[in-house]
Amino acid sequence: MQIIRVDTPSAKYNVFAGSGLLETLAQRIEKSVGRLPRRVFVVTSPEIWDSWSTLFLRSFSEPPIPLFLAPGEQHKTMASVERLTREMTRAGGDRGSLLIAFGGGIVGDVGGFVAGIFMRGIPYVQVPTTFLAQVDSSVGGKVGVNLPEGKNLVGNFHHPRAVFADVGVLDTLPDRELRAGLMESIKAGIIRDRALLRYMEEQAEAILGRDSKALEKVIAASIRMKAGVVNKDERESGLRMILNFGHTVGHALETVTRYKAMLHGEAVAWGMVAALSLGHRRGTITTSQLDRLESLIYRYGPLPALKLRAKKIVAATGSDKKNIGGVRRFVLPLGIGDAGVVEDVTPVELEAAVTYMLEKAKASK
Amino acid sequence: MQIIRVDTPSAKYNVFAGSGLLETLAQRIEKSVGRLPRRVFVVTSPEIWDSWSTLFLRSFSEPPIPLFLAPGEQHKTMASVERLTREMTRAGGDRGSLLIAFGGGIVGDVGGFVAGIFMRGIPYVQVPTTFLAQVDSSVGGKVGVNLPEGKNLVGNFHHPRAVFADVGVLDTLPDRELRAGLMESIKAGIIRDRALLRYMEEQAEAILGRDSKALEKVIAASIRMKAGVVNKDERESGLRMILNFGHTVGHALETVTRYKAMLHGEAVAWGMVAALSLGHRRGTITTSQLDRLESLIYRYGPLPALKLRAKKIVAATGSDKKNIGGVRRFVLPLGIGDAGVVEDVTPVELEAAVTYMLEKAKASK
Repeated sequence: MQIIRVDTPSAKYNVFAGSGLLETLAQRIEKSVGRLPRRVFVVTSPEIWDSWSTLFLRSFSEPPIPLFLAPGEQHKTMASVERLTREMTRAGGDRGSLLIAFGGGIVGDVGGFVAGIFMRGIPYVQVPTTFLAQVDSSVGGKVGVNLPEGKNLVGNFHHPRAVFADVGVLDTLPDRELRAGLMESIKAGIIRDRALLRYMEEQAEAILGRDSKALEKVIAASIRMKAGVVNKDERESGLRMILNFGHTVGHALETVTRYKAMLHGEAVAWGMVAALSLGHRRGTITTSQLDRLESLIYRYGPLPALKLRAKKIVAATGSDKKNIGGVRRFVLPLGIGDAGVVEDVTPVELEAAVTYMLEKAKASK
Repeated sequence: MQIIRVDTPSAKYNVFAGSGLLETLAQRIEKSVGRLPRRVFVVTSPEIWDSWSTLFLRSFSEPPIPLFLAPGEQHKTMASVERLTREMTRAGGDRGSLLIAFGGGIVGDVGGFVAGIFMRGIPYVQVPTTFLAQVDSSVGGKVGVNLPEGKNLVGNFHHPRAVFADVGVLDTLPDRELRAGLMESIKAGIIRDRALLRYMEEQAEAILGRDSKALEKVIAASIRMKAGVVNKDERESGLRMILNFGHTVGHALETVTRYKAMLHGEAVAWGMVAALSLGHRRGTITTSQLDRLESLIYRYGPLPALKLRAKKIVAATGSDKKNIGGVRRFVLPLGIGDAGVVEDVTPVELEAAVTYMLEKAKASK
């Protein structure tokens, strides 16, 4: 097991990554939070609860109260938040209650937001069950829901008291989701961690074969990268923005396809290809670096085909939440293991990069 | 004009109380927030906007975008929050936008909560238009909405960048609302400020006659009391709880009458009578102190009649949000100008105090 420390102005907590965490959860939570309160709620999905509730409940002397969120972005809404807070009230929840978010990224985002606003905020812990949630969304305190007008438009910063990333629960994760999640680890490597990149190049077979030691290593390194960034810039005033590498075009792909054609990690993978191409054109990475990084992305594919027009994708980048006062921000690779934010990317440049990506998407079939 | 400083671990800002603030608002906001952003939103009620928009808009070179919240507790909901955030998104709001909450307590609570969660939090200022909002809800950072199960069950702590309490806008405030709001100033006096109490005793005529200097003095003193408490205990772990003096029974009265029979301040006024009676029985205030404080409360009446049974009111105190893990907290007066929180009030004691209050409510007719 590895322990990664998150240490920001507003919160200090540990992220645990390893095997065998789930069956010892109650004691581990008590170590982080103190004695369990009268009411402990578990926000989870029916699928996850079906597969894992027995193991989850094993360590609790008094079983927590499960509250369910149906899977899918269409349930990441204010309506779900209201329903969950009402259920908690009716089940006797109060300011001293504890919430456990046990599921993928959506469960973590919604559960964390519920914890953030129920009775003006109660403590919670994250027990992420997808690779993506383990390496990305469960760490950093960003929680929230979508509006019909866009993703994550409503939410807040509410850090968990602890995060338990159990490699074992990935057993039930579909292969496609694992591969998509690993794209965020590749992102971590590209922007901040050359050693992780090399490890993912050399150990691709073990990682994709779900060797638990290899997975633990990738998960822990990815979390460590994110925690390091969040520790320095909790509120995304500067550095934290580099975590959005690949996400400008990635989000645009998701918007244009209405979140139905691909997984988030897959969209980010194509977005990274576009961002690498843009960096290459600007000379911030060399041709051989471009080739190396692209190869790594494809190694963890396959990526979905894209039947889209470049202009439409470029237009969809305009509504990015990172844009403030009309300024368009973009994260560029700087060699291998570094990245920076620029504000002067033109629509023409963006279109060229997107066109490059679309050609690759054609060739990859 | 008086300036009161709020200085908590998470926020530092000024509260301005006086005349002529509204017509110079834009410049005053810029002094507190910096240059106004591209999108400035005003959450307000149709009534307030009808009466005051001309004066409000006078100082803005570019008019802010008004968003409306219909009056009444029934609109203090998650549905209103979602609608407002969607309207802001469609009107081009982004992370750099500013929100102005311009109205009574409900507008402030909903507007502040919208600012707290839109794009994970944008800056806002409070421009309260009722006496109650000026002395109480606009200061301290508590924002949120109701659930069908109870009041203020969902929300967060999101401090404004500044508060502008303009005595002039109270001109359109109905007399009953002014009197009800003044009950929170009496509360301020009872728990922390003997000088304010004396002033309210001596200057009752000027205050109720809306003399602007007298009102400014009461408003500023009330805010100063609250700010002093919030500065020491932002998150209500201890001291801040004394602000709930009169509110245990007050909230129960509101619950039992479904918020339809009386104004918040009126319910608190009766709740203070009950709390004074309880203190008197315990010997924390003398008989002459009880008489003096009760007289002051009635001087700022009339208070509404109560046709209720004591047992029902006592039962309704059980669901108070301040109760954690089943412990019932109660704020007791300690002489004049001081108060403390106890956890050992029995239902029998509470019933005796409520019975005392109900008898007074009969006699006062």
